[in-house]
Parts: sequence; structure tokens; C-alpha cells
Amino acid sequence: MKETLPEPALNLDRPLPELSPDREPPRPASYPPIERKPVPFEVKGLQALLDGECADTRTMVKNLVSQFGYDDGLDVPAYRAKVLAWTVRVAEAGLGRIFIPRYLGGEENPPKFMAAFETLAFHDLSLVIKVGVQFGLFAGSIQRLGTEYHHRKYLADAVAARLLGCFAMTEIGHGSNVQGLETTAMYDRATDTFVIHSPSYSSGKDYIGNAGQHGRLATVFAQLEVNGERHGVHAFLVPIRDDAGKPMPGVTITDNGLKMGLNGVDNGCLWFDHVRVPRLEMLNRFAEVTPDGVYQSEIKSANARFFTMIGTLVTGRVSIATTANSAAKSALTIAVRYAARRRQFGPPKASQESLLLDYPAHQARLMPLLANAYALDFALKRLLQLNEKATPGNSREVETLAAALKAFVTWNTTRTIQTCRESCGGEGYMAVNRFAALKADTDVYATFEGDNTVLMQLVAKNLLTEFRDNLKDLRPAQLAGFLVRQKLAQVAKQSPLLCLNVAKGHLLDSAAQLMYFRHREEALLLKNAQLFRRLLSSEQAHTAGTAAPQSTLTESHGATARDGGHGAKAGSERRAPNPEPRTSLDARYTASYTAFTHLQPELLELAHAFAERVTLEYFTEAIAGVENRPLQAVLKRLADLFALTHLDEHRAWYLEQGVFTPTKSGAIRALVLRLCRDLRQEAVALVDAFGIPDACLAAPIGL
Amino acid sequence: MKETLPEPALNLDRPLPELSPDREPPRPASYPPIERKPVPFEVKGLQALLDGECADTRTMVKNLVSQFGYDDGLDVPAYRAKVLAWTVRVAEAGLGRIFIPRYLGGEENPPKFMAAFETLAFHDLSLVIKVGVQFGLFAGSIQRLGTEYHHRKYLADAVAARLLGCFAMTEIGHGSNVQGLETTAMYDRATDTFVIHSPSYSSGKDYIGNAGQHGRLATVFAQLEVNGERHGVHAFLVPIRDDAGKPMPGVTITDNGLKMGLNGVDNGCLWFDHVRVPRLEMLNRFAEVTPDGVYQSEIKSANARFFTMIGTLVTGRVSIATTANSAAKSALTIAVRYAARRRQFGPPKASQESLLLDYPAHQARLMPLLANAYALDFALKRLLQLNEKATPGNSREVETLAAALKAFVTWNTTRTIQTCRESCGGEGYMAVNRFAALKADTDVYATFEGDNTVLMQLVAKNLLTEFRDNLKDLRPAQLAGFLVRQKLAQVAKQSPLLCLNVAKGHLLDSAAQLMYFRHREEALLLKNAQLFRRLLSSEQAHTAGTAAPQSTLTESHGATARDGGHGAKAGSERRAPNPEPRTSLDARYTASYTAFTHLQPELLELAHAFAERVTLEYFTEAIAGVENRPLQAVLKRLADLFALTHLDEHRAWYLEQGVFTPTKSGAIRALVLRLCRDLRQEAVALVDAFGIPDACLAAPIGL
Repeated sequence: MKETLPEPALNLDRPLPELSPDREPPRPASYPPIERKPVPFEVKGLQALLDGECADTRTMVKNLVSQFGYDDGLDVPAYRAKVLAWTVRVAEAGLGRIFIPRYLGGEENPPKFMAAFETLAFHDLSLVIKVGVQFGLFAGSIQRLGTEYHHRKYLADAVAARLLGCFAMTEIGHGSNVQGLETTAMYDRATDTFVIHSPSYSSGKDYIGNAGQHGRLATVFAQLEVNGERHGVHAFLVPIRDDAGKPMPGVTITDNGLKMGLNGVDNGCLWFDHVRVPRLEMLNRFAEVTPDGVYQSEIKSANARFFTMIGTLVTGRVSIATTANSAAKSALTIAVRYAARRRQFGPPKASQESLLLDYPAHQARLMPLLANAYALDFALKRLLQLNEKATPGNSREVETLAAALKAFVTWNTTRTIQTCRESCGGEGYMAVNRFAALKADTDVYATFEGDNTVLMQLVAKNLLTEFRDNLKDLRPAQLAGFLVRQKLAQVAKQSPLLCLNVAKGHLLDSAAQLMYFRHREEALLLKNAQLFRRLLSSEQAHTAGTAAPQSTLTESHGATARDGGHGAKAGSERRAPNPEPRTSLDARYTASYTAFTHLQPELLELAHAFAERVTLEYFTEAIAGVENRPLQAVLKRLADLFALTHLDEHRAWYLEQGVFTPTKSGAIRALVLRLCRDLRQEAVALVDAFGIPDACLAAPIGL
Repeated sequence: MKETLPEPALNLDRPLPELSPDREPPRPASYPPIERKPVPFEVKGLQALLDGECADTRTMVKNLVSQFGYDDGLDVPAYRAKVLAWTVRVAEAGLGRIFIPRYLGGEENPPKFMAAFETLAFHDLSLVIKVGVQFGLFAGSIQRLGTEYHHRKYLADAVAARLLGCFAMTEIGHGSNVQGLETTAMYDRATDTFVIHSPSYSSGKDYIGNAGQHGRLATVFAQLEVNGERHGVHAFLVPIRDDAGKPMPGVTITDNGLKMGLNGVDNGCLWFDHVRVPRLEMLNRFAEVTPDGVYQSEIKSANARFFTMIGTLVTGRVSIATTANSAAKSALTIAVRYAARRRQFGPPKASQESLLLDYPAHQARLMPLLANAYALDFALKRLLQLNEKATPGNSREVETLAAALKAFVTWNTTRTIQTCRESCGGEGYMAVNRFAALKADTDVYATFEGDNTVLMQLVAKNLLTEFRDNLKDLRPAQLAGFLVRQKLAQVAKQSPLLCLNVAKGHLLDSAAQLMYFRHREEALLLKNAQLFRRLLSSEQAHTAGTAAPQSTLTESHGATARDGGHGAKAGSERRAPNPEPRTSLDARYTASYTAFTHLQPELLELAHAFAERVTLEYFTEAIAGVENRPLQAVLKRLADLFALTHLDEHRAWYLEQGVFTPTKSGAIRALVLRLCRDLRQEAVALVDAFGIPDACLAAPIGL
């Protein structure tokens, strides 16, 4: 026996243990069976409803990616190579051709592409992003911003993944504020070329997918300058690597290195040192420069031109949102199935312990998220339809919807995956059970394709602008009275009986639910409009000494985001129809910026209320159109849980407004728990209906 | 020009691009300077306050780990090897010796060990967990559960990291429900040995740190059986690998493989096939078996013995909570500093864009989390003191506090890191900026050392038990009236003036803040007690046909957790002083289980209210003891934000109770935003005071 403590010293000569020799998979397929209860609806029928018209495409994609498998142990180079090979397989399966023009032999079928893209997201999300960059952003920008010359020259190779390319918009210095980009494209008449140049470190095109390794051509967004005059941001096709994969002369490329997730995508940073491209390489659908150096565009407003050109981002947001919801569905499928097989604790002397799914706390964690996933599925389907039919007349509406739902869905996905992971305990922490990849890969969804906080500000601003446009014939003094009467009439006229109504029939009435959601949204809109008007007046009085003019509502496009929550974009106002003197305009813009900045927290609340209302409305309308009664009934239960969960979440607001009594908010909470208990019986069937192939889901605890 | 779309086919002969040759770090040190404003307090003084009495130890640990650096690109074997080497360095620095007994030459100084452990967590968290497993759990179990024989035989090698070991409690089938463990230890008198055996797949000891690769000896928790009689869970030292690193005969080891994070720790799974260990290898401080097969223990109650033996987990929870808060501090330091240097958007025509930190939405995201980190720092310091002085008399109180704060802190850490990541946009997604590791490594904190949901149920049950004990002399009928009078008196007697008081002086009054927190906790406690009593009566009437007896409050120890939120542990009630007939007891336990399960959501709300009240109370008391006025003032601002943020979060409850009017909840919200704006001026100084060395923080955007 040792009497004293010797000095610590590791005997490094003694061999350290090796990895255990028996490294068979630690989790044999010996989990208890998943409890599957009889349900009053057909799971296949529900899946068909979710799959919609493009069911064949979804099946084809599932069959394809089911062959791919996973290999969580790959290092970055190997993972990138694997995702590249998968991307080629996707192209070979014809997925890229779906959306290119018919005159090039394509199908020009965006809904089909969206269905394929959404389904791809049941598998590896690096592949989803690589496909999105290559087909959606790179080829998509050529198709949308280019003309036949570019289509014929590049699209066939792009959609075949023979020509890998980039969408180079975001810069180190400017992510959210796209109009602040520094990269320049100066037209040189002598050589009939554009000179693409990065004037600073911060002008590097950053986080660009395909730039790190595989890209050869890039759609580069730069400030166009012709004859010393600036014309704003335009897009140019710039070769960045030669056939041997070396950077082109004048192009500096660095690799973004290891990321939290999506490491199968090779993000990189690009700088251009006076790189020349022929004039024809400008994507000239909306604006062009003639050989003699004249700038031409059919869109007269510089601002309108900018928003038309970056309009492609709206489709990007919609498609990203659908893939985020796919990831949430994967997480829910794993967590719900695990909860339907895993037992822990239970009544004393019982023959077996209780299923996790039988615990009220567990139900309260998972069931509302299941309802969210369903509600958002139907809301996104509607958004997809609206986006396909978007016209200049309703483009702002679609933009607002896309921004709101993209932010709402991606935040919901982050929360869903987190909660599902925690609800699977230690098993959820093992990479083999997929949450590690789901979490890490989707984390950036709140940032890219528009930072969520910036997008939500855009939403609020668009709503305020629309509100102003609808009411511009009213004098300010009439405004408040008008709204209190008109917008809140439906609540007011039924009050106080309405506020006291705690009957289950009332709380489960779709029209009543929607009314409560609309009431909140409209009241927040009115409040923000009034606050904005007041702030603007005082700001303008402060900065310019002028009388309060009509409010100027600005908008911000968080095109791609590098930063978190931040501010109003006051440089991008739509041009006022009657030009005012510049100094007066500047003062107004400054006042507007200050007012919007001050209102940020309230604006975000409004945007969230809008997103929730839209989701409930679209889900409710979709349910009304379902003819199969049992399917309609279960979807209605999900809509009820969605509606009541959000009413419960915002009950403080409703209490403050006097719309809820304490009794009523208590009744709502009780009903939420009751719905969770009811849906627990159908939960496994509801995740089965997502139709995620076992080979995609892969998590042993969820199969 | 191509006229038709050729069949897609990748020319695989064409060389694919290489990784760019210029792979210098993509982020040069060219970030704008961090804005550091003059503040009315001394940063060094604040850091000294946070560091406390063990400042030297903290400095020593910082100096040590600052030499280690990071290498995010390592594969699992290399990462494990590196963390093992670091662990040896930590041992060589004497950190393991701090807490071993003085008669062995140790320091027996738990506060110093805790300070070291908390500081280690500014660096790699795999190292923290490896150190925690080796010194805290493995060596700690030998010290706490063993006697001098074990101390002398093993501790010196253990704290020197010459003998790497495991703490083998959790099984595949039982994580949270430790009393349900399946592994058996049968005493064989003929050979004077215990036979350690895993009777099933699900009895494998799972997620055991050091088991995957480096461990040689394990503290194994198993059901002791002597002469056919079961005595519950006890601990045994079992060799699992020989000197060459091969599993011992009868021991099967699998590697848990890749995890979401903490991949520098080698978790594995252990099964024992009738493995014999000498009788002396039972850790016999609280119970032992004599050579002739007689079981002896000074603790007569099997249940009390069990909780004494797993009492070491309480210290584990406390220490894990402190390291979780360290991780939150790292995230906040990076995000706040980035927001104080990064500009995006801004007033039109302004000379530069605005700092992210100047946007109200950004302040509203980060400042409350900064307040949380400070509040929890002081609350944990108090908990550490209480834990050191724990006696049998207050062990339940300390257990309750540790469980509540562990869950509260670790959930707060998850939320803090997530928000900080998002608020740094794309930069936050790059591995070099540390959020990837912080997020992935801390994610399991909500699960291990007691699943948070299970712990929060334990908290609520302990509170209810204590409540019952305090009131047991009252007849049930007296209960409600008594409480309404006594517990709510302080609110009631000032009402309604109190409810209408929206004066800033009132809302920023520490006593008033605490009163609101206490009121909510006590009201929830009363409500739960009443609901429980009612449910129990109806359950007992239902199951046993008996009249309603006195309530039986049970407790559950979520020792280590494999699962998410789940249920009451009804098999572990403290033995009732007057034994009743078994069938009556069973009926009572079953009724109790059912009632607790039904109440889960309300119990969790109570537990959260308790955690928040305790945190505010300890923080407030600590501030009262700070003599330096400027320091006291800034800490009071943080406490105000902590208090008002939580009052705002729970305003629905206060509105429902009539404690808040809508005007008051509006005033609170306005004050929250105001405090965020005020603290924005000091935010950088407040994170500087955390004192995290640059070499530990490492994130380029935060240096």
C-alpha cells in the first residue's frame, strides 16, 4: 500500500489502450417495436395529400437518394468529393433539366423542381445546398437574369453539372445590405469589356458555395459603372478557375474552411483584381450596355431594377423554407417513433415501464411541433403556388410572404430539431441518430437567403407600406378612428360575450381562431403605424425643422446575410413619385431610418403575428378543401393545436387587450394539453405519413 | 452555340479542381477595432469579484490551457489522443490532487477544484468532460464511496491520470431511472468475490466516458445480491482493460462512435459476463458484505442508502452547471465584441454604417442573456458554498437547488449560444469562430448528469414534500386558507395599490422584484399541492376504493439521463415511518405516480419559477455585499434586467392573477428595452470582465 502521494507522472512507455477491437456498430437492431395504434385515417392517403401532384418526382428522388447512404466519419475533402459525385448523380437523373427553358429541351416546371428539392432534403443537406447553389442560384441566375445568348452558352453544361458555378453576391463587408456591395464592374469601351474589381479586403465575395473548390464560373454581383456614372448592382459571368482547376489570372480564392455544418459544400471567398470579361457576359435581361457605352434598361427606376434583379432570391427563400421543413419532419419522425418504443419509469409493480409518449410533458414538447410542421407544409404549398403566379402587381405581397415564412419556418426548424434531440436523451446525441447533422446543417438557415431578423423587418415594413397605400386617401386624423371601427369591428361587436366565451366549440371553431389571429396582427399593425407616424414627426421636427410630412415607408432587402439582427435600410426607398429637393428627402430618409430603428422590437412582433396568421389561414383553407373526412378531421386537430398553441403563447397580449379573460386563457391551455393527449394516439401515423424512406432517415432509434 | 440539350454526363477524365493552393487563414486580422467605451466601473475589479478567492487557481489554469490551442480539423482518434495528452498535463499541473484527502498528500479543497474546473471550460469542453470523468466521477467515486483501502490503492494513480477510469452507472435500458439498473453483483462466499454480470443487451453500461478507449478500471453500479437477497444499487471497482489495453476476460466493450460533440471523449459501452472481483473491491463506505456473507450498513433505509451513495451526483451537477455558464460567457464575449465592431446598414448619407450593437433588436437579443450569465454566476457561487457545507439536515435542499440550477443554467447556455451564433450571422457559422464547438459540445448538457426535464420534476416533488412537511400539523381543510393568508400576505396587503404601481422606483426595487418572483413560486406551489391532493384522492378512490389518505410525496433521482422528458419515479419513495400493509402502500404509490404524471406540465412550471427566484435572490444578496459602489451599480442594472426580463416573460401569469395590470406589464416591457439600451454602453466591458484569455476564446471575430 502506498503511504504518500507520489508526484504525478504518466508512464508514457506503457502502451496506451487501442481502440477496442470489436467495433461493430454499438446499436444493434434490437430496439423494442414502435407502438403503432390503429388510427381513423389512412396513412397512405395522408401521404398522398402531402405529396400532391408531383408524387412521382418525389418517389424518383427518394429512390435515388436512398442509394446514397451516409458516412458521418468523412473528413472535409472526402465529404466534398462525395457530395459532388451525388450532385452529378442528381443531374444525371435529370433534376437540373426540370426548370430550364423548353426551347433548350428543358421542362420549365418549377413546381416539379421544388418538389424534388423538398424531397432531397430528407437526405444529406449538404447535397441540398450544393444542388441549390448549382441549379437554383447559379443556373437560375443565368436563366432569370440572362438572355438566350447566355442560356445557350451555359445552361446545358450547368444543369448537367459539367460546369460548376457560383452565385457571388454576399461580400465580407456586406451580407444583408446588398445595395452596399463594393465590387465594381467598369465598362471599358476601348476593349468592349467589363473590368471586375474588388477594391478592398471587405469587398471579397464571401461564403460562396462552389467557390472553395469546384466552381469554374461565377455570377458576380457588382456596381456597374459606365462613363463614370454608377448604375447600381448588376450581374456578370466571370470565369474563376481554368480547366485544370487553378484560379484564373487576377482571381484570388480562399477556402472558408470548416463550418458548423454543411461541410460537403465548398464555400470560398473571391477577390477580383481588374479581371476583364467581354461585354456579352453581362446578364442583360433587365439592363445592358451598348458597345458605345450607353446604359439601357426598360425599368426606369434604379431601385425597381435592383429589386427585379434580386427577385430570384424570393424563389430561393421559398425553396430553402421547404427544405427546412423537411428537416423538421425528419427530426419529428425520429423523436416520435423513439418515444413510441422507449420506456422509462412507470407505475410501481407495473409489468413494464411507461412509454415516453405517454408522459404529458413529453406530449407537450412534441405534439405542438408536429402541428407546426403540418401547418407549415400546407402554408408553403400555397406560397409556392403564389410565387409561380407572381406578377409585377403582387410581387411585393409574394416577397413579404416568402420573407415571413422563410424566417418562421427556419426558426421553427431550429427549435424542432433541438427539442427532438433533447427528447431522445443520450441516444439523440449519437451521430448515428442524425440529430447532429440535422442541427448543424440547418443552423445557418436562419442566416442565409436573408437573415431572419432582417427579413422580419422587411416584412413589417412592407405591411406598413401596404397599410399606408390602402389608407392614403384618409387624413391622418381620420386614421385611428377609422381603424378602430373597421379593423376591430368583428371583435368589438361580439364583445364582451366573445371575451368570455370559453366553450370548446368556440375555441375549436376555425373562423374564431382566425379572427383572434387577425385581430392581433391588425392591432399590431395599427399600433406600429401610429408609433411610426409619431416618431417620424418628432424626428423630422428634430432633424429638419419641418412640419410632419406624410410618412415614408422604406424597405430593406436582406438578400443574403452575414450578420444577425440589425437595421433598417434607408438607402433603398422606392423613388417618390414627386421628387422633392434632395436635402428635404435626406432629412426624411434619416428620420424614417431612425424611427424604424427605434421601433425594431415592435416591428418584429408584427412580422411574427403576420407569419402565424398566414400559416393558420392557408392551413385552414387547405383543410376545407380536403374531401376525405377522416383526413380532414385529423388535419383539423393539428390546426386546432397550432392555433391554440399560438394563442396560448401570446395570451399575455390578449389579456392586456382585454380579449381574453384569465378563465379563457386557462381554458385554452387546458385544451392545448387535451389536444396533445389526443394527437399522441395518432402521432406515429402522422410522422409515418411524411413518407421519409428508412434509408434517408437512417437513425436506428427511429426505424 | 448548342441547339439542344445534350445528355448530362460528367467528363470524369477532366481533372477536378484542387483545393485552392493559397490556404492561408481566410479571416485575416483586419477586423475593425472593437468599440470600447469608458465605463463607470473598473473592469479588473469586476473580474476580481467574479474570480473570487481562487483567483490564483483560475490564473494558473488559464495559463495552462492557453498553451493548448485548438485544432478543429482533427479526426476522432487524433482528437481523443490530444485530449488525453491535455488531461495528463492537467494532472501534472496538480489539479487532480486538489480534492483528494490530506492523509494522502492531497489538498481536499473542493472550492479550488471547482474554480479550476469552471475555468477549464473557457477552453475545449472535451477536456472538461474528460477531466470531470477522470477526477470528478471516477476518482471522486473512489474517494466518496470507498474507504482507506481504495484510497491508498487507487487514488494516487487516478489523480495523476496514470490509471484512467470510468463511472459506469447509466445503462442502455436505464438512464434516468437509476434504481431500475439491471447489472447484478452477486456475492459468492466460496471464493469471497462478487460476480458482476450484465444479464441482457439493455443492461450494458452506456455512454461511459473513458470506456471507449482509455479506461482500465471502472466504478460499476450494480444490484447487490447476497444469499439470494437484493440490497439495491452499490458500487464495485472492476478492471475492464489489461495493461496492453485489451478488454479483460468477460468484458465486452463497444465504442459509442461519433457524437454530436465532445468527440475528444471516448465514450463506450460495457457488458460483463460473470466477471469476478475480490470482495474488497466493493466501495464500502456506506455498506459492506462480510466474508461470511452478511450485509451490513449503518444506513438502515435502503432508500436513504441509495440516495447517499448517488449523492456524489449532486456535486457533479453543480460543477457541470458552472462549466455550462463558462461556455455561455465565451459565446457572449464573442457576440458582444463582434456587435461592437461590425457595421451594417445605417442612416442615409452617414459617414459610416451603424454598429450592430446600436440596433434595439440586437440589444434585446443579447443584453438579457448577458444579465442571465451574471445572475447565474453569482447564484452558482452560492450553491457551491451550500454544497460544501451540506449536512444530512439540508441535503435535500441542496439537492433541489443543484437540480434546479443545473437545468436552468444548461438550458440557458443552449439558448445563449444559439442566439449568439445567429447574431453573428455567417461569421458565426464558421468553425474558427467557435460557436460550432460550443453548441455541439454543450448540447448534451441538458441530458447528462440528470436529464433536465427529469431534474425539474425532482425539484417540484421536493418542493411539494417540503411544503407538506412544513404544514403537516394542519388539517387539509385548513391548508388553503392558511396559505392564502400567510404566503400571499405581502402581496395582498399592498394590493390594489401594488398592482397599479408602475413607478420606475418600484419596478427597480430589489425587494419588490423578489416579492413578485416569490409570489409566483408560492402560488404555483400552493396550486400544485392542491391539484395533487385532489388528483390523489380521486385516484385512490378509483384504484383502491379507500378514503383519501394523507398525500404521499415521492421523489425521483434523474441520476444520469438517456431519455428526454418523462415521468415520476414512484418506486423510490422514502420509507414511510409507520409501515402500512403492502397492498395499501402499492395503491397509494400507484395513485401518487398517476397524479404526478398528470401534473407534469404544472410541476415543470413550478420548478422553473423556483429556479428563477433562487437565482434572483442569490444574485441580489451577493450585490448587497459588494462594497465598491460603481461595481454594485452595474451589477444592480444586470439584476434589474434579469428580474424584469423574467417578469415580462411571465406577464401572462401575473395578468391572469390580477397582480399586473396591462399598464404595468407595458411599463415593465418598456423598462426592459431601456435597460438593454443602458447596458449596451457597458456590454463590452461586462464581457471583458469574464476574463477569458484570447488563446481560449480564439474566435477571430471576438478578439
